[in-house]
Amino acid sequence: MKSGSPDMAKVSVKGGVHRRFLDPLNGKAISPPPIWLMRQAGRYLPEYRATRAEAGSFLNLCYNPAMAAEVTLQPIRRYGFDAAILFSDILVVPDALGQTVSFVEGEGPRLEPIREAAALARLKPGSASAKYAIICETVARLRQDLPAETELIGFCGAPWTVATYMVGGQGSTDQAHARGMAYRDPQAFQHLMDILVETSIEYLSGQVEAGAGVLQIFDSWAGSLPDGEFAKWVVAPTKRIVSAVKAKHPTIPVIGFPRGACGLSKTFIEQTGVDAISCDTAMPLSVMRGLQDTGKAVQGNIDPLLLVAGGEALNRRIDETLAALADKPFIFNLGHGIVPHTPPAHVAQLVDRVRAWKA
Amino acid sequence: MKSGSPDMAKVSVKGGVHRRFLDPLNGKAISPPPIWLMRQAGRYLPEYRATRAEAGSFLNLCYNPAMAAEVTLQPIRRYGFDAAILFSDILVVPDALGQTVSFVEGEGPRLEPIREAAALARLKPGSASAKYAIICETVARLRQDLPAETELIGFCGAPWTVATYMVGGQGSTDQAHARGMAYRDPQAFQHLMDILVETSIEYLSGQVEAGAGVLQIFDSWAGSLPDGEFAKWVVAPTKRIVSAVKAKHPTIPVIGFPRGACGLSKTFIEQTGVDAISCDTAMPLSVMRGLQDTGKAVQGNIDPLLLVAGGEALNRRIDETLAALADKPFIFNLGHGIVPHTPPAHVAQLVDRVRAWKA
Repeated sequence: MKSGSPDMAKVSVKGGVHRRFLDPLNGKAISPPPIWLMRQAGRYLPEYRATRAEAGSFLNLCYNPAMAAEVTLQPIRRYGFDAAILFSDILVVPDALGQTVSFVEGEGPRLEPIREAAALARLKPGSASAKYAIICETVARLRQDLPAETELIGFCGAPWTVATYMVGGQGSTDQAHARGMAYRDPQAFQHLMDILVETSIEYLSGQVEAGAGVLQIFDSWAGSLPDGEFAKWVVAPTKRIVSAVKAKHPTIPVIGFPRGACGLSKTFIEQTGVDAISCDTAMPLSVMRGLQDTGKAVQGNIDPLLLVAGGEALNRRIDETLAALADKPFIFNLGHGIVPHTPPAHVAQLVDRVRAWKA
Repeated sequence: MKSGSPDMAKVSVKGGVHRRFLDPLNGKAISPPPIWLMRQAGRYLPEYRATRAEAGSFLNLCYNPAMAAEVTLQPIRRYGFDAAILFSDILVVPDALGQTVSFVEGEGPRLEPIREAAALARLKPGSASAKYAIICETVARLRQDLPAETELIGFCGAPWTVATYMVGGQGSTDQAHARGMAYRDPQAFQHLMDILVETSIEYLSGQVEAGAGVLQIFDSWAGSLPDGEFAKWVVAPTKRIVSAVKAKHPTIPVIGFPRGACGLSKTFIEQTGVDAISCDTAMPLSVMRGLQDTGKAVQGNIDPLLLVAGGEALNRRIDETLAALADKPFIFNLGHGIVPHTPPAHVAQLVDRVRAWKA
């Protein structure tokens, strides 16, 4: 079905304008596919680095609606992506819950870790709304400032991934602290997950009410869980969030990103209620093709390091990806976020190549 | 086919004794399946910590045949595993090649990184043999000291994974330096891989000649590569090593461990020539079952963090794993190495439970 048909118009038109980004999320392939890039607002852009320096700390930037909106808009001005993604961080949620969160330059986030049931009492879910309101102000500004044809993506971290930081206190290669707590004290861990599910529903619903037209749930560490744990800590909480947000906002599309969970990606797409799945770099194109057969959209999955390298190898992989996936519902993206040393010219090369695509 | 049948006797008897460990590697299911655990010699054992303290540095321990043999034997004495694995480290290879390698307590390995083609000239493949000879002396001692029915596993890191450390200079969550070099300068990266393939063939062949009866190739970071790169940097070099070692030693079984590469595991098992695939914690049992349908063995994949937790949840997962996989060629193991804070009593619980299994 081509863009502009009556059926599509019904679902992909907002404010009288066709938003191409919504077509694949409504089950419709378009050529060329819509494109955005994870971390498209970020350190690889000199204008981002300037605003970031002005903001002081990273969290200051997240909680300053004018500045957060500004950095969100920067890549839209440069590249005209089909969607902007709210500039924020998945650790805004533990911060809003009252956990101490800071970002150490060059080392990543540091949190006062929650290692046992008693520490959960320190969390204050009832007080989170004030910080969410600031983020939602950014969303509202963005919806005002963005071109009408550009979609705005709101997001949160999935409960499992947010919990790995809350329990571990920092990033790790194996998420051992959270996995350990989930095995050692599943009741306490379930309690933490319940808090995160409820607060994420509130947070995402607020973003939709402020103007986000699509949501993405980032589960960056979904790939470290065995199948039974994946069902408990990835599928079940994601499903609860998707159901609750869709109960309030029935037409809101949700993209899930269970990074590293290739072997359970079909389970994820079939059981969580998401409208699309974002695929990491290691996901074979053949598996992504299989996921499209569920009737839902896939998003991905160029290697961010290949984007750094650029050149003909990047062009070849873009073409290969489009040839494999673009005739079914597909959103062009990376398999993970843009890395800081990416040359902005390579991003332009990527966008131009995708935009010039003809099946 | 049951243990003791004439066909099995042909392939699984060494020195007049039946080695149960070899049965699944020869395509035969046995009940209960053989068991060993990755990092079964390690910090969770007080007797290991004592020997380690005596050795001084970690590399001293690897290069001291008496001490390395001692720590290899410790878990065999405690638990009677069906196989011992040579105590060593995958970074012995870059060390033997002349790269500066050290182990920083609590922080992991540090190497003088190789970031461009010119730095490859510093490697001295011709000089590696002297250090390999020391490791092979450990292997020879072990074959002498181990019970005749206990198999001895030799190993090396896969070229891709070893290269991620050689190029990155340390561990990382995304192996960005190696992936970047592979994209930016594929010729130089191929040259590094060629060096690693050739030296790994020499190293593994030496281990077999010294008495190793099975080999395992650890590709811990195989899961970060897109499909095309996986073919170039995981499948092709592994296949070259397996072919060359088997050309010299036609009956030597080889286990591959492409950690995190669930989506490409079937490609791996079909194209590399390995006799078995070791599966990480995130690999669903249903996918492992599918891999057994290739006629080869699978090994895995209890979560090491579940082993830390122990209790009924561990028992349930052991039973579930055995019920799913033990009627076809299967080796019981973890999905990754034992972690240091594992209670030794939980390892005993695991071994007893597996040994008591009846289909």
